[in-house]
Amino acid sequence: MGNGQSRREMLAGSGAAMLAASLPACGWAQEPPKRKLGYAIVGLGSYATRQIMPRLKECEHAKLVALVSGTPEKLERFGSEYGIPKTHRYSYAEYDRIRDNPDIDIVYVVLPNALHAEYSIRASQAGKHVLCEKPMAVSVAECQAMIAAAKKAGKKLMIGYRSRFQAHNLRAIELVRSGFVGKPRLITSEHGFTISPNQWRLDRPLSGGGSMMDIGIYSLNAARYLAGEEPIEVSAMESTGKADPRFRTVEDRIDWQMRFPSGALAACVSSYSSNHNAYRVTGTEGWVGLEPATAYEGQQMWTRTKGKTEQVTLPVPAKNQFVGQLDHMAECVLTGREPIVAGEEGLRDMRLIEAIYRSAREGRAVKLAKA
Amino acid sequence: MGNGQSRREMLAGSGAAMLAASLPACGWAQEPPKRKLGYAIVGLGSYATRQIMPRLKECEHAKLVALVSGTPEKLERFGSEYGIPKTHRYSYAEYDRIRDNPDIDIVYVVLPNALHAEYSIRASQAGKHVLCEKPMAVSVAECQAMIAAAKKAGKKLMIGYRSRFQAHNLRAIELVRSGFVGKPRLITSEHGFTISPNQWRLDRPLSGGGSMMDIGIYSLNAARYLAGEEPIEVSAMESTGKADPRFRTVEDRIDWQMRFPSGALAACVSSYSSNHNAYRVTGTEGWVGLEPATAYEGQQMWTRTKGKTEQVTLPVPAKNQFVGQLDHMAECVLTGREPIVAGEEGLRDMRLIEAIYRSAREGRAVKLAKA
Repeated sequence: MGNGQSRREMLAGSGAAMLAASLPACGWAQEPPKRKLGYAIVGLGSYATRQIMPRLKECEHAKLVALVSGTPEKLERFGSEYGIPKTHRYSYAEYDRIRDNPDIDIVYVVLPNALHAEYSIRASQAGKHVLCEKPMAVSVAECQAMIAAAKKAGKKLMIGYRSRFQAHNLRAIELVRSGFVGKPRLITSEHGFTISPNQWRLDRPLSGGGSMMDIGIYSLNAARYLAGEEPIEVSAMESTGKADPRFRTVEDRIDWQMRFPSGALAACVSSYSSNHNAYRVTGTEGWVGLEPATAYEGQQMWTRTKGKTEQVTLPVPAKNQFVGQLDHMAECVLTGREPIVAGEEGLRDMRLIEAIYRSAREGRAVKLAKA
Repeated sequence: MGNGQSRREMLAGSGAAMLAASLPACGWAQEPPKRKLGYAIVGLGSYATRQIMPRLKECEHAKLVALVSGTPEKLERFGSEYGIPKTHRYSYAEYDRIRDNPDIDIVYVVLPNALHAEYSIRASQAGKHVLCEKPMAVSVAECQAMIAAAKKAGKKLMIGYRSRFQAHNLRAIELVRSGFVGKPRLITSEHGFTISPNQWRLDRPLSGGGSMMDIGIYSLNAARYLAGEEPIEVSAMESTGKADPRFRTVEDRIDWQMRFPSGALAACVSSYSSNHNAYRVTGTEGWVGLEPATAYEGQQMWTRTKGKTEQVTLPVPAKNQFVGQLDHMAECVLTGREPIVAGEEGLRDMRLIEAIYRSAREGRAVKLAKA
């Protein structure tokens, strides 16, 4: 705040230069390339078909070129809709044949959690770059195997942390780093939704766990990117109504606390039986918060400093979070840079998720070994 | 919600009948008495002189009749200002002589925490009713001794939980109990302020502890009155910068979680290095929250149900929280009823505070024995 910029300029962003500075960029050696990289989408569930595939049309460096699904009707329907030729539509039995399709540069794995590792590793082995949805996998061991497979193939591995490409989240991070709230002391981060019965998320063999392996990862990842440092201790408490048929194999709610090296604490919520989507970073000088924080759209930001609470309106960014994420991966492939949310980032969350589960199970705080 | 009352009526309160119903009442057997009960204020710090004493003038059933202080100048200044005769001004050496003053019905102890037990017990022994500030004392053992002393004297003992007489807090409790948010699943409750150095709150022998023994009790007590049930397990994490000269003998921040028998969880914050004053109860159907929640004034209420967030404006109540609290104690003395926040309520919080400290110290969840 000592650079002569007024507080209001800082909040609203002082024009295009500042906004550009806040967005991840890969930087081109010379001219940006003309060729758009080709994405294969693996798993044609609602997130893939409603959120991802429509956004590929808006990308600067990427396009949709192939589909993978176990449902022939879906391949036919979305293949026709997106103009994907039959040669570029794959069943899971045919999955490894993506190796022979040079139009496919990047494989985006949008499958149930327990299938992430297998389909990411096979994509790496097929010589493709991989973008995989979060949580990265269902165990630390799987995450490590995915990282090793991508490394062996000499290809990129990125995890779908879309909030890192969302304008309000980027501005919140920037405000915290700039000292706007003073020294961060307490981060609260709540995410949850009321889950409908009869879906893969409630089936442990497919999901790997309950709300913590789904919506809860937003609370966890946000606490980490807002803090800008890695937790050294976690303490968790689970609450699951075993009589509720939705929760026969997975947990409902987990609340947990994290301690950071600076002394900041985080209090996080993950729920499958109540709706939450908010975070706040309170520091020695005030706070900044979003609600909703990590929704597909509609983010709202508030700040409080010097005893005054204000809503902050940000300019509409050139790319929304979905387009930003898809283009970032393509840019990283084209420039050779590492994604800002590479496999190692997914692994960090998974280590913490395992620690959170262990803490809840054993009723004790769990200290984290340095990775 | 099934009684035909519309949601808006419920939120805003359908007139005087509903507001009256929500306020604690003692109920007169016949006519309300004409005589106002006399309060002696013990300890003339800023809370007593700025918040309590001015409000006694507004009370229906109470008046200020005596002052106790170790500072002759304060006795002179406030004695003159409030028209308290010299015979009704006491030093601590003269404290036990309140026994001989029939004008004093109730002794309000507004001393540093570590003195609460002694001065409350001596007031009971002097045959007076006692209203004591929160935290009730600095240990469970002290709380039990205070309860025993009041019982032996056959006099009332009430703890100064003023939020239980504050309109927004009462409405929030009412909304939660009515099922407005569905089944409560998660309560967040944050309280903190940036403490100035060099005061008794930072001196363990006087305070008994740090933020948890001061502002943190608001988070704790609110979580309990919002839940409407008693926690069965707590898990806490402390963070204190030992290099900060303010925190040589007491803790800065404690975050803790509580599990309730219904399965609801609470995530609570207590801080001496950041400003917080908010709570929210999120249930299966929505949420209700206040921010500020427990300030002296200016409470604001929001609710969210059916995907819509609304601010709720309440009618100005006949009595503010300070007047409500002072009159409630007087009414209980006059009618023989028990205060809604008797000594047992202070003891419940103190049991939990001891469990929270133990959990933070030992790095494990602590189960609560049924009291």
